[in-house]
Amino acid sequence: MSQAVIISEVAPRDGLQSIGSFVPTETKIAMVRALYEAGVRRMEVGSFVSPRHVPQMADTAEVLKAAKQLPGLECTVLVPNRKGFDLAMDAGADRLGFFMSVTEAHNRANLNRSRDESLAELSALVREGAAAGVAMRFNLSCAFHCPFEGVVPVTEAVDMLERVFSLDPGLEIGIADTTGNAAPDQVAAVFAHALASWGNPFAFHGHDTYGMGLANALAAYEVGCRIFDGAAGGLGGCPFAPGATGNTATEDLAWMFRRMGAATGLDWAKLLVAADLCAAVPGGQPGGRVRGVPGARAAA
Amino acid sequence: MSQAVIISEVAPRDGLQSIGSFVPTETKIAMVRALYEAGVRRMEVGSFVSPRHVPQMADTAEVLKAAKQLPGLECTVLVPNRKGFDLAMDAGADRLGFFMSVTEAHNRANLNRSRDESLAELSALVREGAAAGVAMRFNLSCAFHCPFEGVVPVTEAVDMLERVFSLDPGLEIGIADTTGNAAPDQVAAVFAHALASWGNPFAFHGHDTYGMGLANALAAYEVGCRIFDGAAGGLGGCPFAPGATGNTATEDLAWMFRRMGAATGLDWAKLLVAADLCAAVPGGQPGGRVRGVPGARAAA
Repeated sequence: MSQAVIISEVAPRDGLQSIGSFVPTETKIAMVRALYEAGVRRMEVGSFVSPRHVPQMADTAEVLKAAKQLPGLECTVLVPNRKGFDLAMDAGADRLGFFMSVTEAHNRANLNRSRDESLAELSALVREGAAAGVAMRFNLSCAFHCPFEGVVPVTEAVDMLERVFSLDPGLEIGIADTTGNAAPDQVAAVFAHALASWGNPFAFHGHDTYGMGLANALAAYEVGCRIFDGAAGGLGGCPFAPGATGNTATEDLAWMFRRMGAATGLDWAKLLVAADLCAAVPGGQPGGRVRGVPGARAAA
Repeated sequence: MSQAVIISEVAPRDGLQSIGSFVPTETKIAMVRALYEAGVRRMEVGSFVSPRHVPQMADTAEVLKAAKQLPGLECTVLVPNRKGFDLAMDAGADRLGFFMSVTEAHNRANLNRSRDESLAELSALVREGAAAGVAMRFNLSCAFHCPFEGVVPVTEAVDMLERVFSLDPGLEIGIADTTGNAAPDQVAAVFAHALASWGNPFAFHGHDTYGMGLANALAAYEVGCRIFDGAAGGLGGCPFAPGATGNTATEDLAWMFRRMGAATGLDWAKLLVAADLCAAVPGGQPGGRVRGVPGARAAA
Protein backbone atom coordinates (compact mmCIF):
# COMPACT_ATOMS: atom_id res chain seq x y z
CA MET A 1 0.00 0.00 0.00
CA SER A 2 1.47 3.34 -1.00
CA GLN A 3 1.83 6.15 1.51
CA ALA A 4 0.12 9.51 1.17
CA VAL A 5 2.25 12.47 0.20
CA ILE A 6 1.98 16.23 0.55
CA ILE A 7 2.69 18.28 -2.55
CA SER A 8 3.68 21.77 -1.52
CA GLU A 9 2.92 24.21 -4.32
CA VAL A 10 5.62 26.76 -5.21
CA ALA A 11 4.37 28.20 -8.52
CA PRO A 12 3.27 31.57 -7.08
CA ARG A 13 6.81 32.15 -5.79
CA ASP A 14 9.48 29.99 -7.44
CA GLY A 15 7.44 29.76 -10.62
CA LEU A 16 7.01 33.50 -11.05
CA GLN A 17 10.08 35.12 -9.59
CA SER A 18 12.21 34.83 -12.72
CA ILE A 19 9.58 36.39 -14.99
CA GLY A 20 10.85 39.80 -16.04
CA SER A 21 7.54 41.57 -16.59
CA PHE A 22 5.41 42.11 -13.53
CA VAL A 23 2.60 39.59 -13.21
CA PRO A 24 -0.47 41.49 -11.98
CA THR A 25 -1.46 40.82 -8.39
CA GLU A 26 -4.90 39.64 -9.45
CA THR A 27 -3.29 37.02 -11.73
CA LYS A 28 -1.20 35.76 -8.83
CA ILE A 29 -4.27 35.59 -6.62
CA ALA A 30 -6.18 33.76 -9.36
CA MET A 31 -3.37 31.18 -9.47
CA VAL A 32 -3.51 30.76 -5.70
CA ARG A 33 -7.29 30.32 -5.77
CA ALA A 34 -7.27 27.80 -8.65
CA LEU A 35 -4.61 25.74 -6.89
CA TYR A 36 -6.57 25.87 -3.67
CA GLU A 37 -9.67 24.72 -5.55
CA ALA A 38 -7.63 21.75 -6.79
CA GLY A 39 -6.95 20.73 -3.22
CA VAL A 40 -3.58 22.36 -2.56
CA ARG A 41 -3.27 23.06 1.16
CA ARG A 42 0.38 24.10 1.36
CA MET A 43 1.66 26.88 -0.83
CA GLU A 44 4.67 29.16 -1.14
CA VAL A 45 2.80 32.36 -2.01
CA GLY A 46 5.66 34.82 -2.20
CA SER A 47 8.80 36.14 -0.59
CA PHE A 48 9.70 39.19 1.44
CA VAL A 49 12.82 40.01 -0.48
CA SER A 50 14.01 43.41 -1.64
CA PRO A 51 11.56 44.71 -4.28
CA ARG A 52 14.54 46.35 -5.90
CA HIS A 53 16.22 43.00 -6.48
CA VAL A 54 13.10 40.92 -7.15
CA PRO A 55 10.35 43.32 -8.24
CA GLN A 56 8.12 40.37 -9.16
CA MET A 57 7.62 39.68 -5.44
CA ALA A 58 6.82 43.27 -4.46
CA ASP A 59 3.15 42.41 -3.89
CA THR A 60 3.70 39.42 -1.61
CA ALA A 61 1.83 41.08 1.27
CA GLU A 62 -1.27 41.48 -0.91
CA VAL A 63 -1.09 37.95 -2.30
CA LEU A 64 -0.61 36.57 1.19
CA LYS A 65 -3.57 38.56 2.48
CA ALA A 66 -5.82 37.05 -0.19
CA ALA A 67 -4.41 33.55 0.32
CA LYS A 68 -5.01 33.72 4.05
CA GLN A 69 -8.72 34.02 3.38
CA LEU A 70 -8.81 30.47 2.04
CA PRO A 71 -9.70 28.16 4.94
CA GLY A 72 -7.12 25.50 5.72
CA LEU A 73 -4.46 26.81 3.34
CA GLU A 74 -1.03 27.00 4.93
CA CYS A 75 0.83 29.93 3.39
CA THR A 76 4.60 29.96 3.29
CA VAL A 77 6.64 33.04 2.45
CA LEU A 78 10.36 33.05 1.87
CA VAL A 79 12.41 35.18 4.21
CA PRO A 80 16.02 35.99 3.35
CA ASN A 81 16.94 38.10 6.36
CA ARG A 82 15.85 40.07 9.44
CA LYS A 83 13.85 42.57 7.43
CA GLY A 84 11.96 39.86 5.58
CA PHE A 85 11.38 38.04 8.84
CA ASP A 86 9.78 41.08 10.42
CA LEU A 87 7.60 41.72 7.38
CA ALA A 88 6.48 38.08 7.25
CA MET A 89 5.63 38.02 10.95
CA ASP A 90 3.68 41.27 10.61
CA ALA A 91 1.81 39.92 7.60
CA GLY A 92 0.87 36.76 9.46
CA ALA A 93 2.56 34.13 7.30
CA ASP A 94 1.70 30.61 8.43
CA ARG A 95 5.17 29.29 7.67
CA LEU A 96 8.49 31.02 7.14
CA GLY A 97 10.82 29.70 4.50
CA PHE A 98 14.53 30.25 5.05
CA PHE A 99 17.13 29.37 2.46
CA MET A 100 20.83 29.01 1.91
CA SER A 101 23.06 26.74 -0.15
CA VAL A 102 24.93 23.58 0.67
CA THR A 103 27.86 24.80 -1.41
CA GLU A 104 29.99 27.81 -0.55
CA ALA A 105 30.22 29.06 -4.13
CA HIS A 106 26.47 29.06 -4.74
CA ASN A 107 25.78 30.64 -1.36
CA ARG A 108 28.14 33.48 -2.18
CA ALA A 109 26.77 33.92 -5.70
CA ASN A 110 23.15 33.81 -4.61
CA LEU A 111 23.27 35.46 -1.20
CA ASN A 112 26.52 37.39 -1.31
CA ARG A 113 27.84 35.95 1.94
CA SER A 114 29.55 32.86 3.27
CA ARG A 115 27.66 29.83 4.50
CA ASP A 116 28.84 30.57 8.04
CA GLU A 117 27.42 34.07 7.79
CA SER A 118 24.10 32.78 6.41
CA LEU A 119 23.84 30.17 9.09
CA ALA A 120 24.59 32.65 11.87
CA GLU A 121 22.00 35.13 10.64
CA LEU A 122 19.34 32.52 10.00
CA SER A 123 19.94 30.69 13.28
CA ALA A 124 18.97 33.85 15.18
CA LEU A 125 15.78 34.10 13.11
CA VAL A 126 14.98 30.42 13.58
CA ARG A 127 15.28 30.85 17.35
CA GLU A 128 12.92 33.83 17.26
CA GLY A 129 10.50 32.01 15.01
CA ALA A 130 10.49 29.02 17.35
CA ALA A 131 9.89 31.28 20.33
CA ALA A 132 6.97 32.88 18.48
CA GLY A 133 5.57 29.45 17.65
CA VAL A 134 5.50 29.96 13.88
CA ALA A 135 6.06 27.00 11.55
CA MET A 136 9.28 27.08 9.56
CA ARG A 137 10.97 25.44 6.59
CA PHE A 138 14.71 25.64 6.14
CA ASN A 139 15.61 25.15 2.46
CA LEU A 140 19.04 23.96 1.38
CA SER A 141 19.81 24.78 -2.25
CA CYS A 142 22.29 22.84 -4.40
CA ALA A 143 22.23 19.85 -2.10
CA PHE A 144 23.26 17.48 -4.90
CA HIS A 145 24.75 19.50 -7.71
CA CYS A 146 26.04 23.05 -7.93
CA PRO A 147 26.50 25.17 -11.05
CA PHE A 148 29.91 26.23 -9.72
CA GLU A 149 31.21 23.24 -7.76
CA GLY A 150 29.65 20.38 -9.73
CA VAL A 151 28.52 17.22 -8.00
CA VAL A 152 28.07 17.73 -4.25
CA PRO A 153 29.37 14.83 -2.14
CA VAL A 154 26.71 13.19 0.00
CA THR A 155 28.85 13.87 3.07
CA GLU A 156 28.79 17.61 2.35
CA ALA A 157 24.99 17.64 2.17
CA VAL A 158 24.73 15.57 5.32
CA ASP A 159 27.17 17.86 7.17
CA MET A 160 25.03 20.85 6.30
CA LEU A 161 21.86 19.05 7.39
CA GLU A 162 23.55 18.38 10.70
CA ARG A 163 24.36 22.04 11.16
CA VAL A 164 20.85 23.16 10.28
CA PHE A 165 19.27 20.45 12.39
CA SER A 166 21.16 21.69 15.43
CA LEU A 167 19.28 24.99 15.16
CA ASP A 168 15.89 23.53 15.99
CA PRO A 169 14.79 19.93 16.27
CA GLY A 170 11.29 20.72 14.95
CA LEU A 171 12.35 22.48 11.77
CA GLU A 172 11.18 21.10 8.45
CA ILE A 173 14.13 20.92 6.08
CA GLY A 174 13.74 21.27 2.33
CA ILE A 175 16.51 19.56 0.40
CA ALA A 176 16.73 21.05 -3.07
CA ASP A 177 18.02 19.85 -6.39
CA THR A 178 18.43 23.37 -7.71
CA THR A 179 20.01 22.52 -11.07
CA GLY A 180 17.88 19.44 -11.77
CA ASN A 181 21.06 17.41 -12.14
CA ALA A 182 20.89 15.32 -8.97
CA ALA A 183 21.41 11.62 -9.50
CA PRO A 184 18.66 9.42 -8.06
CA ASP A 185 21.14 7.43 -5.97
CA GLN A 186 22.43 10.68 -4.42
CA VAL A 187 18.90 11.74 -3.56
CA ALA A 188 18.20 8.35 -2.03
CA ALA A 189 21.43 8.44 -0.01
CA VAL A 190 20.85 11.91 1.42
CA PHE A 191 17.19 11.33 2.29
CA ALA A 192 17.82 7.86 3.71
CA HIS A 193 20.50 9.32 5.97
CA ALA A 194 18.38 12.29 6.98
CA LEU A 195 15.26 10.28 7.72
CA ALA A 196 17.16 7.64 9.67
CA SER A 197 19.11 10.20 11.71
CA TRP A 198 16.55 12.82 12.65
CA GLY A 199 12.89 13.02 13.41
CA ASN A 200 12.39 16.21 11.40
CA PRO A 201 10.17 16.21 8.38
CA PHE A 202 12.19 16.52 5.19
CA ALA A 203 10.93 17.77 1.84
CA PHE A 204 12.32 17.22 -1.64
CA HIS A 205 12.42 20.26 -3.91
CA GLY A 206 13.23 19.12 -7.44
CA HIS A 207 13.70 20.61 -10.86
CA ASP A 208 13.08 18.76 -14.11
CA THR A 209 15.80 20.43 -16.16
CA TYR A 210 17.50 17.17 -17.15
CA GLY A 211 14.26 15.19 -17.29
CA MET A 212 15.11 13.48 -14.00
CA GLY A 213 12.56 15.36 -11.87
CA LEU A 214 10.23 12.40 -11.41
CA ALA A 215 13.04 9.86 -11.10
CA ASN A 216 14.55 11.91 -8.29
CA ALA A 217 11.20 12.39 -6.57
CA LEU A 218 10.68 8.64 -6.79
CA ALA A 219 14.11 8.02 -5.26
CA ALA A 220 13.24 10.30 -2.33
CA TYR A 221 9.79 8.72 -1.94
CA GLU A 222 11.19 5.21 -1.87
CA VAL A 223 13.35 5.97 1.15
CA GLY A 224 10.54 7.67 3.03
CA CYS A 225 10.25 11.31 1.93
CA ARG A 226 6.60 12.37 1.97
CA ILE A 227 6.73 16.11 1.18
CA PHE A 228 7.45 17.29 -2.35
CA ASP A 229 7.61 20.76 -3.81
CA GLY A 230 6.07 21.21 -7.23
CA ALA A 231 5.12 24.11 -9.47
CA ALA A 232 1.88 23.80 -11.40
CA GLY A 233 2.46 24.19 -15.13
CA GLY A 234 6.12 23.39 -14.57
CA LEU A 235 6.73 27.12 -14.16
CA GLY A 236 10.09 28.35 -13.05
CA GLY A 237 12.61 28.26 -15.85
CA CYS A 238 15.44 30.70 -15.85
CA PRO A 239 15.12 33.21 -18.70
CA PHE A 240 18.91 33.55 -18.82
CA ALA A 241 19.63 29.83 -19.27
CA PRO A 242 18.40 28.42 -22.59
CA GLY A 243 16.98 24.95 -22.12
CA ALA A 244 16.78 25.35 -18.38
CA THR A 245 13.38 24.34 -17.20
CA GLY A 246 11.55 24.92 -14.02
CA ASN A 247 10.45 23.10 -10.96
CA THR A 248 9.12 19.63 -11.42
CA ALA A 249 5.50 20.16 -12.40
CA THR A 250 2.94 19.60 -9.67
CA GLU A 251 0.72 17.78 -12.14
CA ASP A 252 3.56 15.45 -13.19
CA LEU A 253 4.24 14.58 -9.56
CA ALA A 254 0.53 14.18 -8.93
CA TRP A 255 0.15 11.86 -11.91
CA MET A 256 3.01 9.61 -10.86
CA PHE A 257 1.78 9.41 -7.28
CA ARG A 258 -1.77 8.81 -8.47
CA ARG A 259 -0.56 5.95 -10.65
CA MET A 260 1.29 4.56 -7.62
CA GLY A 261 -1.81 4.81 -5.44
CA ALA A 262 -0.20 7.40 -3.15
CA ALA A 263 -2.88 9.88 -2.10
CA THR A 264 -2.12 13.56 -2.74
CA GLY A 265 -5.47 15.09 -1.79
CA LEU A 266 -5.55 16.80 -5.17
CA ASP A 267 -8.48 16.76 -7.61
CA TRP A 268 -7.02 15.74 -10.96
CA ALA A 269 -9.48 17.64 -13.17
CA LYS A 270 -9.19 20.84 -11.14
CA LEU A 271 -5.43 20.49 -10.96
CA LEU A 272 -5.26 20.46 -14.76
CA VAL A 273 -7.35 23.65 -14.81
CA ALA A 274 -4.97 25.29 -12.34
CA ALA A 275 -1.89 24.02 -14.17
CA ASP A 276 -3.18 25.36 -17.49
CA LEU A 277 -3.80 28.71 -15.83
CA CYS A 278 -0.28 28.82 -14.38
CA ALA A 279 1.29 27.72 -17.65
CA ALA A 280 -0.49 30.56 -19.45
CA VAL A 281 0.92 33.34 -17.26
CA PRO A 282 2.37 35.93 -19.67
CA GLY A 283 6.16 35.82 -19.68
CA GLY A 284 6.25 32.47 -17.92
CA GLN A 285 8.31 29.53 -19.06
CA PRO A 286 6.00 26.57 -18.60
CA GLY A 287 7.15 22.98 -18.47
CA GLY A 288 5.83 19.67 -17.33
CA ARG A 289 4.66 16.75 -19.36
CA VAL A 290 1.27 15.30 -18.56
CA ARG A 291 -0.67 18.46 -19.43
CA GLY A 292 0.01 17.62 -23.08
CA VAL A 293 -0.85 13.93 -22.92
CA PRO A 294 -4.33 12.98 -24.18
CA GLY A 295 -4.43 9.95 -21.90
CA ALA A 296 -3.86 12.12 -18.85
CA ARG A 297 -6.42 14.71 -19.97
CA ALA A 298 -8.95 11.96 -20.56
CA ALA A 299 -8.64 10.93 -16.93
CA ALA A 300 -9.93 14.34 -15.82
CA MET B 1 28.98 0.96 -6.48
CA SER B 2 26.57 1.12 -9.38
CA GLN B 3 26.23 -1.77 -11.79
CA ALA B 4 26.92 -1.50 -15.51
CA VAL B 5 23.96 -1.50 -17.85
CA ILE B 6 23.37 -2.28 -21.51
CA ILE B 7 21.39 0.22 -23.51
CA SER B 8 19.88 -1.48 -26.51
CA GLU B 9 19.24 1.04 -29.26
CA VAL B 10 15.87 0.90 -31.03
CA ALA B 11 15.77 4.18 -32.99
CA PRO B 12 16.35 2.59 -36.41
CA ARG B 13 13.27 0.40 -35.91
CA ASP B 14 10.88 1.65 -33.22
CA GLY B 15 11.96 5.23 -33.78
CA LEU B 16 11.33 5.23 -37.51
CA GLN B 17 8.46 2.85 -38.14
CA SER B 18 5.72 5.38 -37.49
CA ILE B 19 7.16 7.97 -39.87
CA GLY B 20 4.86 8.20 -42.85
CA SER B 21 7.34 9.31 -45.52
CA PHE B 22 10.04 6.81 -46.39
CA VAL B 23 13.37 7.53 -44.72
CA PRO B 24 16.09 6.83 -47.29
CA THR B 25 18.15 3.71 -46.66
CA GLU B 26 21.35 5.75 -46.54
CA THR B 27 19.87 7.89 -43.75
CA LYS B 28 19.03 4.78 -41.76
CA ILE B 29 22.52 3.42 -42.28
CA ALA B 30 24.02 6.78 -41.23
CA MET B 31 22.00 6.56 -38.00
CA VAL B 32 23.25 3.03 -37.37
CA ARG B 33 26.85 4.08 -37.97
CA ALA B 34 26.66 7.18 -35.77
CA LEU B 35 25.18 5.15 -32.94
CA TYR B 36 27.85 2.50 -33.38
CA GLU B 37 30.50 5.24 -33.26
CA ALA B 38 29.00 6.33 -29.93
CA GLY B 39 29.58 2.89 -28.50
CA VAL B 40 26.22 1.20 -29.11
CA ARG B 41 26.76 -2.54 -29.45
CA ARG B 42 23.17 -3.77 -29.45
CA MET B 43 20.70 -2.36 -31.91
CA GLU B 44 17.27 -3.12 -33.32
CA VAL B 45 18.00 -2.27 -36.95
CA GLY B 46 14.67 -3.11 -38.53
CA SER B 47 11.87 -5.61 -38.84
CA PHE B 48 10.83 -8.18 -41.39
CA VAL B 49 7.20 -7.23 -41.45
CA SER B 50 4.95 -6.88 -44.45
CA PRO B 51 6.19 -3.93 -46.56
CA ARG B 52 2.57 -3.33 -47.42
CA HIS B 53 1.68 -2.72 -43.77
CA VAL B 54 4.91 -1.01 -42.71
CA PRO B 55 6.58 0.36 -45.84
CA GLN B 56 9.14 2.19 -43.70
CA MET B 57 10.78 -1.15 -42.89
CA ALA B 58 10.91 -2.39 -46.49
CA ASP B 59 14.70 -1.95 -46.63
CA THR B 60 15.53 -3.84 -43.45
CA ALA B 61 17.64 -6.39 -45.35
CA GLU B 62 19.85 -3.61 -46.74
CA VAL B 63 20.17 -1.81 -43.40
CA LEU B 64 21.00 -5.10 -41.69
CA LYS B 65 23.63 -5.88 -44.31
CA ALA B 66 25.37 -2.56 -43.66
CA ALA B 67 25.03 -2.90 -39.89
CA LYS B 68 26.56 -6.37 -39.94
CA GLN B 69 29.78 -4.85 -41.31
CA LEU B 70 30.36 -3.06 -38.00
CA PRO B 71 32.54 -5.30 -35.82
CA GLY B 72 30.99 -6.31 -32.52
CA LEU B 73 27.55 -4.86 -33.22
CA GLU B 74 24.76 -7.25 -32.36
CA CYS B 75 21.90 -6.63 -34.79
CA THR B 76 18.34 -7.45 -33.79
CA VAL B 77 15.47 -7.58 -36.24
CA LEU B 78 11.84 -7.92 -35.29
CA VAL B 79 10.06 -10.96 -36.59
CA PRO B 80 6.26 -11.14 -36.46
CA ASN B 81 5.70 -14.55 -38.03
CA ARG B 82 7.07 -17.50 -39.99
CA LYS B 83 7.78 -15.42 -43.08
CA GLY B 84 9.70 -12.80 -41.12
CA PHE B 85 11.57 -15.54 -39.30
CA ASP B 86 12.75 -17.10 -42.55
CA LEU B 87 13.79 -13.73 -43.97
CA ALA B 88 15.69 -12.84 -40.80
CA MET B 89 17.51 -16.15 -40.70
CA ASP B 90 18.43 -15.82 -44.37
CA ALA B 91 19.67 -12.29 -43.80
CA GLY B 92 21.84 -13.39 -40.90
CA ALA B 93 20.31 -11.38 -38.07
CA ASP B 94 22.28 -11.76 -34.83
CA ARG B 95 19.17 -11.71 -32.69
CA LEU B 96 15.51 -12.25 -33.48
CA GLY B 97 12.95 -10.07 -31.75
CA PHE B 98 9.51 -11.61 -31.24
CA PHE B 99 6.60 -9.62 -29.88
CA MET B 100 3.09 -9.96 -28.55
CA SER B 101 1.01 -8.22 -25.93
CA VAL B 102 0.25 -9.02 -22.33
CA THR B 103 -3.33 -7.90 -22.85
CA GLU B 104 -5.80 -9.67 -25.10
CA ALA B 105 -7.29 -6.46 -26.47
CA HIS B 106 -3.97 -4.96 -27.55
CA ASN B 107 -2.79 -8.25 -29.02
CA ARG B 108 -5.92 -8.44 -31.15
CA ALA B 109 -5.69 -4.79 -32.19
CA ASN B 110 -2.00 -4.93 -32.99
CA LEU B 111 -1.60 -8.47 -34.30
CA ASN B 112 -5.12 -9.43 -35.28
CA ARG B 113 -5.11 -12.65 -33.30
CA SER B 114 -5.58 -13.92 -29.78
CA ARG B 115 -2.76 -14.22 -27.31
CA ASP B 116 -3.08 -18.01 -27.47
CA GLU B 117 -2.67 -17.92 -31.23
CA SER B 118 0.35 -15.60 -30.98
CA LEU B 119 1.96 -17.75 -28.35
CA ALA B 120 1.41 -20.94 -30.33
CA GLU B 121 2.89 -19.48 -33.51
CA LEU B 122 5.84 -17.85 -31.77
CA SER B 123 6.62 -20.86 -29.63
CA ALA B 124 7.26 -22.90 -32.78
CA LEU B 125 9.61 -20.18 -34.04
CA VAL B 126 11.37 -19.93 -30.69
CA ARG B 127 12.00 -23.67 -30.77
CA GLU B 128 13.45 -23.43 -34.26
CA GLY B 129 15.54 -20.42 -33.33
CA ALA B 130 16.91 -22.25 -30.29
CA ALA B 131 17.73 -25.29 -32.42
CA ALA B 132 19.56 -23.01 -34.86
CA GLY B 133 21.48 -21.38 -32.01
CA VAL B 134 20.38 -17.84 -32.80
CA ALA B 135 19.95 -15.32 -29.96
CA MET B 136 16.39 -14.22 -29.31
CA ARG B 137 14.42 -11.55 -27.48
CA PHE B 138 10.76 -12.05 -26.69
CA ASN B 139 9.04 -8.68 -26.23
CA LEU B 140 5.85 -8.32 -24.24
CA SER B 141 3.94 -5.13 -25.07
CA CYS B 142 1.52 -3.42 -22.68
CA ALA B 143 2.94 -5.19 -19.66
CA PHE B 144 1.80 -2.42 -17.31
CA HIS B 145 -0.85 -0.37 -19.04
CA CYS B 146 -2.97 -0.98 -22.11
CA PRO B 147 -4.76 1.62 -24.24
CA PHE B 148 -7.84 -0.65 -24.23
CA GLU B 149 -7.78 -2.42 -20.88
CA GLY B 150 -6.16 0.24 -18.71
CA VAL B 151 -3.88 -0.71 -15.85
CA VAL B 152 -2.58 -4.26 -16.19
CA PRO B 153 -2.50 -6.19 -12.92
CA VAL B 154 0.96 -7.37 -11.90
CA THR B 155 -0.37 -10.93 -11.79
CA GLU B 156 -1.42 -10.74 -15.44
CA ALA B 157 2.06 -9.63 -16.51
CA VAL B 158 3.67 -12.33 -14.37
CA ASP B 159 1.35 -15.01 -15.77
CA MET B 160 2.37 -14.07 -19.29
CA LEU B 161 6.06 -14.08 -18.34
CA GLU B 162 5.55 -17.58 -17.01
CA ARG B 163 4.02 -18.73 -20.28
CA VAL B 164 6.79 -17.18 -22.36
CA PHE B 165 9.47 -18.43 -20.04
CA SER B 166 8.26 -21.97 -20.49
CA LEU B 167 9.14 -21.73 -24.20
CA ASP B 168 12.88 -21.50 -23.66
CA PRO B 169 14.87 -20.97 -20.50
CA GLY B 170 17.57 -18.98 -22.28
CA LEU B 171 15.27 -16.45 -23.90
CA GLU B 172 15.78 -12.78 -23.14
CA ILE B 173 12.44 -11.20 -22.32
CA GLY B 174 11.69 -7.55 -23.02
CA ILE B 175 9.01 -6.14 -20.76
CA ALA B 176 7.50 -3.08 -22.39
CA ASP B 177 5.69 -0.03 -21.11
CA THR B 178 4.10 0.64 -24.48
CA THR B 179 1.92 3.58 -23.47
CA GLY B 180 4.46 5.20 -21.13
CA ASN B 181 1.90 5.07 -18.35
CA ALA B 182 3.42 2.36 -16.17
CA ALA B 183 3.70 3.27 -12.51
CA PRO B 184 7.18 2.85 -11.05
CA ASP B 185 5.93 0.52 -8.33
CA GLN B 186 4.35 -1.73 -10.97
CA VAL B 187 7.61 -1.84 -12.90
CA ALA B 188 9.50 -2.67 -9.72
CA ALA B 189 7.03 -5.41 -8.77
CA VAL B 190 7.11 -7.12 -12.18
CA PHE B 191 10.89 -6.98 -12.55
CA ALA B 192 11.54 -8.01 -8.96
CA HIS B 193 9.31 -11.04 -9.45
CA ALA B 194 10.84 -11.91 -12.82
CA LEU B 195 14.44 -11.57 -11.69
CA ALA B 196 13.85 -13.52 -8.50
CA SER B 197 11.97 -16.31 -10.28
CA TRP B 198 13.95 -16.97 -13.41
CA GLY B 199 17.53 -16.81 -14.56
CA ASN B 200 16.68 -15.21 -17.88
CA PRO B 201 17.93 -11.77 -18.73
CA PHE B 202 15.08 -9.24 -18.68
CA ALA B 203 15.04 -5.90 -20.47
CA PHE B 204 12.92 -2.83 -19.81
CA HIS B 205 11.48 -1.12 -22.85
CA GLY B 206 10.05 2.23 -21.79
CA HIS B 207 8.31 5.19 -23.33
CA ASP B 208 8.46 8.71 -21.97
CA THR B 209 4.96 9.79 -22.96
CA TYR B 210 3.90 10.79 -19.45
CA GLY B 211 7.37 11.98 -18.41
CA MET B 212 7.89 8.85 -16.32
CA GLY B 213 10.39 7.18 -18.66
CA LEU B 214 13.40 7.70 -16.43
CA ALA B 215 11.48 7.07 -13.20
CA ASN B 216 10.34 3.73 -14.57
CA ALA B 217 13.81 2.84 -15.82
CA LEU B 218 15.14 3.70 -12.36
CA ALA B 219 12.51 1.47 -10.74
CA ALA B 220 13.57 -1.44 -12.96
CA TYR B 221 17.27 -0.77 -12.36
CA GLU B 222 16.85 -0.68 -8.60
CA VAL B 223 15.46 -4.20 -8.53
CA GLY B 224 18.18 -5.56 -10.80
CA CYS B 225 17.26 -4.95 -14.44
CA ARG B 226 20.41 -4.24 -16.45
CA ILE B 227 19.16 -4.04 -20.06
CA PHE B 228 17.25 -0.97 -21.24
CA ASP B 229 15.86 -0.10 -24.63
CA GLY B 230 16.25 3.50 -25.72
CA ALA B 231 15.83 5.47 -28.92
CA ALA B 232 18.39 8.16 -29.64
CA GLY B 233 16.75 11.54 -30.10
CA GLY B 234 13.68 10.21 -28.32
CA LEU B 235 12.31 9.16 -31.69
CA GLY B 236 9.18 7.10 -31.89
CA GLY B 237 6.10 9.19 -31.30
CA CYS B 238 2.88 8.20 -32.88
CA PRO B 239 1.83 10.69 -35.58
CA PHE B 240 -1.82 9.83 -34.94
CA ALA B 241 -1.75 10.56 -31.19
CA PRO B 242 -1.18 14.24 -30.37
CA GLY B 243 1.11 14.60 -27.39
CA ALA B 244 2.24 11.01 -27.57
CA THR B 245 6.00 10.86 -27.44
CA GLY B 246 8.42 8.18 -28.27
CA ASN B 247 10.70 5.76 -26.61
CA THR B 248 12.66 6.98 -23.66
CA ALA B 249 15.64 8.73 -25.23
CA THR B 250 18.90 6.82 -25.19
CA GLU B 251 20.74 9.99 -24.23
CA ASP B 252 18.39 10.62 -21.28
CA LEU B 253 18.94 7.08 -20.01
CA ALA B 254 22.68 7.44 -20.61
CA TRP B 255 22.78 10.72 -18.67
CA MET B 256 20.95 9.33 -15.67
CA PHE B 257 23.11 6.21 -15.55
CA ARG B 258 26.24 8.30 -16.03
CA ARG B 259 25.23 10.48 -13.11
CA MET B 260 24.66 7.34 -11.05
CA GLY B 261 28.07 5.97 -11.99
CA ALA B 262 26.56 3.02 -13.87
CA ALA B 263 28.74 2.31 -16.92
CA THR B 264 26.96 2.23 -20.29
CA GLY B 265 29.97 1.93 -22.60
CA LEU B 266 28.71 4.96 -24.49
CA ASP B 267 30.78 8.01 -25.42
CA TRP B 268 28.76 11.02 -24.30
CA ALA B 269 29.97 13.48 -26.95
CA LYS B 270 29.48 11.02 -29.78
CA LEU B 271 26.12 9.97 -28.41
CA LEU B 272 24.93 13.58 -28.61
CA VAL B 273 26.08 13.69 -32.24
CA ALA B 274 24.13 10.52 -32.99
CA ALA B 275 21.09 11.71 -31.06
CA ASP B 276 21.06 15.02 -32.95
CA LEU B 277 21.27 13.10 -36.21
CA CYS B 278 18.36 10.85 -35.24
CA ALA B 279 16.28 13.76 -33.98
CA ALA B 280 16.74 15.51 -37.32
CA VAL B 281 15.36 12.69 -39.45
CA PRO B 282 12.72 14.29 -41.71
CA GLY B 283 9.22 13.40 -40.56
CA GLY B 284 10.41 12.13 -37.22
CA GLN B 285 8.93 13.13 -33.93
CA PRO B 286 11.93 13.68 -31.68
CA GLY B 287 11.77 13.78 -27.91
CA GLY B 288 14.10 13.45 -25.00
CA ARG B 289 15.36 16.08 -22.65
CA VAL B 290 19.09 16.34 -22.15
CA ARG B 291 19.88 17.21 -25.75
CA GLY B 292 18.45 20.67 -25.02
CA VAL B 293 20.19 21.25 -21.71
CA PRO B 294 23.32 23.43 -21.84
CA GLY B 295 24.77 21.68 -18.79
CA ALA B 296 24.55 18.31 -20.51
CA ARG B 297 25.99 19.67 -23.76
CA ALA B 298 28.86 21.22 -21.86
CA ALA B 299 29.79 17.80 -20.53
CA ALA B 300 30.48 16.59 -24.07
